Amino acid sequence: MNKPTTKTRKILRYAQGVARETEDLVVTEYPLTVFLNEEEFATLVCTLQDIEDLVIGFLASEGVLRDFRDVKKVSVDPEQGFAYVETHQVRKLNQELYSKRYITSCCGKSRQGYYFYNDAKTAKDLRGVELSIPYDDCFRLMQALQEQAETFRSTGGVHNAALCDLNGPLVTRMDIGRHNALDKVYGYGLQHGVDTADKIIAFSGRVSSEVLLKVAKIGSPILLSKSAPTELALELAEELGIAVVGFVRRDGLNVYTCRERIVES
Amino acid sequence: MNKPTTKTRKILRYAQGVARETEDLVVTEYPLTVFLNEEEFATLVCTLQDIEDLVIGFLASEGVLRDFRDVKKVSVDPEQGFAYVETHQVRKLNQELYSKRYITSCCGKSRQGYYFYNDAKTAKDLRGVELSIPYDDCFRLMQALQEQAETFRSTGGVHNAALCDLNGPLVTRMDIGRHNALDKVYGYGLQHGVDTADKIIAFSGRVSSEVLLKVAKIGSPILLSKSAPTELALELAEELGIAVVGFVRRDGLNVYTCRERIVES
Repeated sequence: MNKPTTKTRKILRYAQGVARETEDLVVTEYPLTVFLNEEEFATLVCTLQDIEDLVIGFLASEGVLRDFRDVKKVSVDPEQGFAYVETHQVRKLNQELYSKRYITSCCGKSRQGYYFYNDAKTAKDLRGVELSIPYDDCFRLMQALQEQAETFRSTGGVHNAALCDLNGPLVTRMDIGRHNALDKVYGYGLQHGVDTADKIIAFSGRVSSEVLLKVAKIGSPILLSKSAPTELALELAEELGIAVVGFVRRDGLNVYTCRERIVES
Repeated sequence: MNKPTTKTRKILRYAQGVARETEDLVVTEYPLTVFLNEEEFATLVCTLQDIEDLVIGFLASEGVLRDFRDVKKVSVDPEQGFAYVETHQVRKLNQELYSKRYITSCCGKSRQGYYFYNDAKTAKDLRGVELSIPYDDCFRLMQALQEQAETFRSTGGVHNAALCDLNGPLVTRMDIGRHNALDKVYGYGLQHGVDTADKIIAFSGRVSSEVLLKVAKIGSPILLSKSAPTELALELAEELGIAVVGFVRRDGLNVYTCRERIVES
């Protein structure tokens, strides 16, 4: 059901004043058109691996799918780049409202507000969820993610996300798109009925507001990233009770929000 | 008209077994809702700098705006994150078709095809355009881009794009979003009537198919990147006559497509 994640290409490598022909591994990228109950819903550009995870996670993330039990059938045609999802209930999307910006009132509840109505409906408030992780385990989980990230090392082109407990990653997914990698982890969790409230997400990419909202939808209260967060992501993280730990690298880490979730080893 | 690109935050830095409070610069990110002739068109998440460039480039890139002379007025409210664009002609969008995948026939013209109808209509075929660049200038232009990329160095969070001639960058734009950085350059070019056929684009980010299509819409036949391309981007680059030069770093560079455009110094 998968397509190759890399392809070998003849390239010209220029170094120290000399150009010579050589071979390079290039990461692949495919369009995937998702049909929902026989209607064209959206086209993603992605790595064609773990396609069912991606499709389920994407539809859940978009707020279209609320419960995996609602899925009747998922079928995938990787050659054409088509995925077909059938649901038991045909949920009528309010297309007018669907991608509209959600402009919050000034009641003081949210400084910035979510962008879209579907985010406001599907992001979980995790402030009441108890979960903490020792510093040492932050490094250990990020290390485990990187060890499973073969393609990134050889091509420099993909992102990785893992759903972990304190023992290590339960599932690791990769994709050319940052958001897709998270959607795949989301879709895996939904299909396998994983309780996400006591899980940690380890992620190779930058923590934008979109990434933070995806983590809130998945429902994990701790996010570890190798990279930097944005200010808006941190504001949302504070509101939703998600600990953001950034720049998790050999030499240290930064705890940006919900410090009480990161504890001494 | 701009909003700050970074904000100072109190964080907990943990290194060598010790946690201490410190300050960190975090990159900002804002929602920007674009209204086209008084209708809500889309909401971007972006860096609120050079907002007019972004809005014009975005609408052109989406295929909605074909000619800058069609723009009657652009006004921006950075506090609310709103941008209003009025055009002389109200172009009726075929919304049904607009975001549909463009599935090419098997006539052999395109192996992969563009994804969306609007890409197929707006991407330029640059095979007939004569432009080449010496190896040394590839390094020099990428160096110039990085020197102008202050925010990236301090926060690790933004992308940069520059429209260059052989003398150096004419304009450099940054954004939290890779695509936005390119759209800003596109919008600048349109507003200032820049001839892009003899220009080179220098870019900090990965060359995905979406990035490549944006470069084709802008109309520049040479793309330099610090990072890796995808296979699909390279296939499109070959079809459209765009030279993709990747991993332009101190120790060398890779020429992936249209080798004839990169010449000895």
